[in-house]
Amino acid sequence: MPQTAIATTAIIGRDVQLGDDTRIGEYTVIEDGVRIGGRCEIAHNVVIHAGTVIGDNVRIDAGAVVGKQPMRSRNSATTSEKVVPPARIGEASLIGANSVVYAGCELGRSVLVADLATVREDVTVGDFTIVGRGVAIENHCTVGRYCKLETNVYVTAYTTIEDRVFVAPGVLTSNDNFIGRTEERFKHFKGATIRRGGRIGVGAVLLPGVEIESDAVVAAGAVQTKTAQSDTIYAGVPARPFRDVPEEQKLDNQGWKDIK
Amino acid sequence: MPQTAIATTAIIGRDVQLGDDTRIGEYTVIEDGVRIGGRCEIAHNVVIHAGTVIGDNVRIDAGAVVGKQPMRSRNSATTSEKVVPPARIGEASLIGANSVVYAGCELGRSVLVADLATVREDVTVGDFTIVGRGVAIENHCTVGRYCKLETNVYVTAYTTIEDRVFVAPGVLTSNDNFIGRTEERFKHFKGATIRRGGRIGVGAVLLPGVEIESDAVVAAGAVQTKTAQSDTIYAGVPARPFRDVPEEQKLDNQGWKDIK
Amino acid sequence: MPQTAIATTAIIGRDVQLGDDTRIGEYTVIEDGVRIGGRCEIAHNVVIHAGTVIGDNVRIDAGAVVGKQPMRSRNSATTSEKVVPPARIGEASLIGANSVVYAGCELGRSVLVADLATVREDVTVGDFTIVGRGVAIENHCTVGRYCKLETNVYVTAYTTIEDRVFVAPGVLTSNDNFIGRTEERFKHFKGATIRRGGRIGVGAVLLPGVEIESDAVVAAGAVQTKTAQSDTIYAGVPARPFRDVPEEQKLDNQGWKDIK
Repeated sequence: MPQTAIATTAIIGRDVQLGDDTRIGEYTVIEDGVRIGGRCEIAHNVVIHAGTVIGDNVRIDAGAVVGKQPMRSRNSATTSEKVVPPARIGEASLIGANSVVYAGCELGRSVLVADLATVREDVTVGDFTIVGRGVAIENHCTVGRYCKLETNVYVTAYTTIEDRVFVAPGVLTSNDNFIGRTEERFKHFKGATIRRGGRIGVGAVLLPGVEIESDAVVAAGAVQTKTAQSDTIYAGVPARPFRDVPEEQKLDNQGWKDIK
Repeated sequence: MPQTAIATTAIIGRDVQLGDDTRIGEYTVIEDGVRIGGRCEIAHNVVIHAGTVIGDNVRIDAGAVVGKQPMRSRNSATTSEKVVPPARIGEASLIGANSVVYAGCELGRSVLVADLATVREDVTVGDFTIVGRGVAIENHCTVGRYCKLETNVYVTAYTTIEDRVFVAPGVLTSNDNFIGRTEERFKHFKGATIRRGGRIGVGAVLLPGVEIESDAVVAAGAVQTKTAQSDTIYAGVPARPFRDVPEEQKLDNQGWKDIK
Repeated sequence: MPQTAIATTAIIGRDVQLGDDTRIGEYTVIEDGVRIGGRCEIAHNVVIHAGTVIGDNVRIDAGAVVGKQPMRSRNSATTSEKVVPPARIGEASLIGANSVVYAGCELGRSVLVADLATVREDVTVGDFTIVGRGVAIENHCTVGRYCKLETNVYVTAYTTIEDRVFVAPGVLTSNDNFIGRTEERFKHFKGATIRRGGRIGVGAVLLPGVEIESDAVVAAGAVQTKTAQSDTIYAGVPARPFRDVPEEQKLDNQGWKDIK
């Protein structure tokens, strides 16, 4: 990035506020009313839509699109026709290249949204959480602090993920037991609930409404069809209890401390 | 997006036609011979390659690339060296941020191609169909009307999907029983065929040449190795008949009407 | 792309070298010290970060980001805080639209990195290999020559893939048997090892540290938990030996010759 603070080709809308020592790359478009903190690095070809609020020390890589309004298909089951409020990105967060962060989401501090990931509207992501490369978080989701959602994880609408949850690459979730049929289904959409310290192995699938209790584990490749009880490992298709979580792997035995 | 119809930084090629009330964003590049209808919203940093034809009321979000020519690797099994005709995007369609739509594809009206999805050449997508976030539709495919291909679905080359098909997130398809070996395989490439109203559950896998008959269901996580018969649910690895599709879930019992 | 060699809106940094007959698209940003060979086609809205070295006859499509520095989350297990050397792209390679290629990677000649794929730092990819659409190759990986990594394959950190390996769409790999817990795990991170001619079927999962021996096959949908022996097909969850690889599918019976 050039040494000048703001590239001459950057387009800065009306009523934009930029903090000290923030750098804006070439051909980046910052729409009206955006607020960006100090010491940020916004790369080239980034688009930041109107009203977005970005904290200090944030890095946004090339080609990222931040604050876009939802698209409403006539045929969508979970997206309604509304204008959502601007996105909010907490301090020291990192936003990857060619990622898409929607208006109506709120990211805590030191969140990493990696390349080509998507975070939709009506979503909150807690501090220090990693949203891996290619991850999609659909609308109406809550993700806690210190989580890791690894590469290409799919978080369906109406999912709740508490703190310190670990979701391995390629895990899928679902929220519709009626597979797109009946009017009845609209009353029952329910994503996964993953309690504090729950862990999901690579390529596992969580069926609609499943709860993963605290410190439970779903093994790699398993299809979880019902509640996974605390401190228990589930495996297989469909998944069944397999063994207890080893003591040394339990969350409270890691010596990890949360930063307040 | 600014109030002016065409951003001063937009680059408009020769012989481009733009309909009334269409807005073009900053740093968007519209190559020669493109035709865009009225009341369209083309965002910032979009690239529309030469000759693309876009109907009225289309929205294209930031960073989308529309009408790109295929790349031919020396080592590809299904892509030939040719220049394909321009892409055609039907009226009232929505094209997501950082998505990639190839030349040689034809989208009907009110199609949604969500963020980061790819639609390749020699593909048709019917009216009102949703191509979800991150979906990849390879070359030589036909997708019907009113389908939903949810997030990260993979549609392999030589696949046929009829109307009102529902494919849940992360479903995979395949077309090569020889897994990349023998000259013989080139005669046998065959993707999935999903008949009217067929439904595929989250994370299921369809093996090469498999047919999903009308209103059949492949359950979440199943690996479908042979034909799925009408009105029947298949489950397991490999998938076996599991039970009948409930009457209230059958397509003809939904009261849905197609718009002509 | 316009007929002029370098679009007037392209931004060319200091000490950039461009070969003969190379074309640069609109709003493309080429940072300081980049070297690009002759007869290259760099499309619009591309970003090439400082110092990147690109051979002759390379095509880079719209929206690609080449040579970005890693992002270090405070919470990452495998990414350290360092500046990595510039990316190197071999001659006749193709880089897809909206893809992300990191600094610190080295691509051979005639490599295809398809749309929306990611190749991270400390990675080498051999000549004539296809890195399919949406593929993610994490850091610290080696990929051989003439491989095909098909759409959305996930290659975890610390993976080794030898020559002529075929990985079908949606295959997942993993490197952490401790699923994100214990300090002990840092000593044991180990991805997959896929020996010469190994093949992995659609949607299969390889657990941490698994070795796929020469010409072995993991069938579609299998979860491979231990070594797959040479010339043997494994299937199921967990995968077990299923049958021998047919003679006509063995690598040495294809009559393929490597170009030196």
